[in-house]
Amino acid sequence: MHALITGAAGMIGRKLAERLTRDGAPDGKPLDQLTLVDVVEPAAPANFGGVLMRMTLDLASPGSAASTVAGRPDVIFHLAAVVSGEAEADLEKGYRVNFGGTRNLLDAVRLRGATTGWAPRLVFASSMAVFGGDMPDVIDDDFFLTPQTSYGAQKAMCEHLVADYSRRGFIRGIGIRLPTICVRPGKPNKAASGFFSGIIREPLNGQEAILPVGEDVRHCMASPRSAVGFFLHAMMLDTAQLGIQPNLIMPALSVTVAEQIEALERVAGSSAVKHIRRQPDAAIDKMVRGWGRAVDARRARALGFVVETSFDEIVREYIDEEMPAHRA
Amino acid sequence: MHALITGAAGMIGRKLAERLTRDGAPDGKPLDQLTLVDVVEPAAPANFGGVLMRMTLDLASPGSAASTVAGRPDVIFHLAAVVSGEAEADLEKGYRVNFGGTRNLLDAVRLRGATTGWAPRLVFASSMAVFGGDMPDVIDDDFFLTPQTSYGAQKAMCEHLVADYSRRGFIRGIGIRLPTICVRPGKPNKAASGFFSGIIREPLNGQEAILPVGEDVRHCMASPRSAVGFFLHAMMLDTAQLGIQPNLIMPALSVTVAEQIEALERVAGSSAVKHIRRQPDAAIDKMVRGWGRAVDARRARALGFVVETSFDEIVREYIDEEMPAHRA
Repeated sequence: MHALITGAAGMIGRKLAERLTRDGAPDGKPLDQLTLVDVVEPAAPANFGGVLMRMTLDLASPGSAASTVAGRPDVIFHLAAVVSGEAEADLEKGYRVNFGGTRNLLDAVRLRGATTGWAPRLVFASSMAVFGGDMPDVIDDDFFLTPQTSYGAQKAMCEHLVADYSRRGFIRGIGIRLPTICVRPGKPNKAASGFFSGIIREPLNGQEAILPVGEDVRHCMASPRSAVGFFLHAMMLDTAQLGIQPNLIMPALSVTVAEQIEALERVAGSSAVKHIRRQPDAAIDKMVRGWGRAVDARRARALGFVVETSFDEIVREYIDEEMPAHRA
Repeated sequence: MHALITGAAGMIGRKLAERLTRDGAPDGKPLDQLTLVDVVEPAAPANFGGVLMRMTLDLASPGSAASTVAGRPDVIFHLAAVVSGEAEADLEKGYRVNFGGTRNLLDAVRLRGATTGWAPRLVFASSMAVFGGDMPDVIDDDFFLTPQTSYGAQKAMCEHLVADYSRRGFIRGIGIRLPTICVRPGKPNKAASGFFSGIIREPLNGQEAILPVGEDVRHCMASPRSAVGFFLHAMMLDTAQLGIQPNLIMPALSVTVAEQIEALERVAGSSAVKHIRRQPDAAIDKMVRGWGRAVDARRARALGFVVETSFDEIVREYIDEEMPAHRA
């Protein structure tokens, strides 16, 4: 089996590569070949015995996408994107990378398939940011898309491409509408949602974290481990089950910021939460309140996608994966 | 007032230019300047005393869009597109023209506005084809988009661009989700919906018409006169009323093919309907049944958009506008 991961130097891409090379595909098929693509050189996964190709290129640059699919991978995980904050700050970059890069990749697949009959599985990292505006407390896959960020608009446009190219048989597409991933390891990125991770990660590491929104903010989250699980599960699905709508809301844990902080205190003690400093930012508060508060992911759940059931579990997973010295 | 019309050589574009030059803007403002753009040279409207510019170019070609907006029109009517049948038959052309041309135009406006603060009204010709799949009998603006043609996917992607560029202040955008326009004058075009007009137009002109679908097919329609009326009304709206969703389902008359034929018989007699020949085409039948059967255009109606109330009226309008020798 040959898998291609774009955005492979990113946090999810890296973890996905590690899981795939360690465990193979979920159905037990061995991974013989792995192609990793990103604008910076992706790390080589440890102990991979198959053929590894690492490509440093920008999918948004004319012609570059074709080289990534020349080896006709069986499955393409398309994760490459700039994050919401950056897409809002730099309109051209957001459209160029998030939309243009996706379009280039899909067209490269289409053109390669035209002469060979190849039509790979393509798992697209979409986002709950495709939703926006006044939303009911719980939204499902039938809810209409009025994204309120350029990032969300770009992801929505890509979802239409994935659906249309699937309908026409160029790909077997699946769009994974990711909730906010929490707890992200490492340094803060430019995503407006970054603080959801920061208020857990920094205190666990004895550092100050800024909380820019009210504690009543409710939001949908899943751990990095669950996100990788979504992609691996999407790898095995019978895509015929998706019907005409291949873009799926993923199961997510709906919690308030206050509940996050309570979980942190239960897992790491009262000293940890003292590192959280309230510093309201009206722009971030407004943006975040425009996102989904809770989801009804019945389609995805019926297809076998799963997520954590408590935020305590998510905090413990972070410690387990990212803080080896602190494992219980 | 300076108006720009893309797709100005098309049927609606031509009628819109004629109405604008004859009557001025709906609020009585005179039209001083009119720029007409199409891939073939647009006709000059009769008796126009203002500055007329006609441009023959392809908005999808790099750099061409900038020249169309150099004069900073007050309102842009963006009608240029290839029709659904052609976009389905030629995937690359459909994406290049319907999506790429729109993106180029919007980016040309954005870049021109960046140095001048100009943010024109932009009225985008969208389509009911943004909807698809299993639909309830009546759909409204909150219904989710799962287009089942590439044309519909392209229009949906453009709607997201129009919404995002409006949100960011580059344009004051309004998307007009047109129902099928009937009765189209002239020769059949490549639209899969062409027969809805053909079964009226050809019999009225003593010619045979092919009916490729069952008479129970129900569909949403508006006359060319109503379509022009939608665009003119969109010219005057306070766009702040559109909130975060600038794409509007237009009012439409919901009729079955059988009801169309009955209206034709009432207006033009039983001899007319004998020119209709049933020749089922499973592909067209399937495509057409995937489109909206009836709409709840309460948002558009509340904003003042109007449409015909009977198909008899639509048949009589065709005779009045296109068959001067037969006027009652």
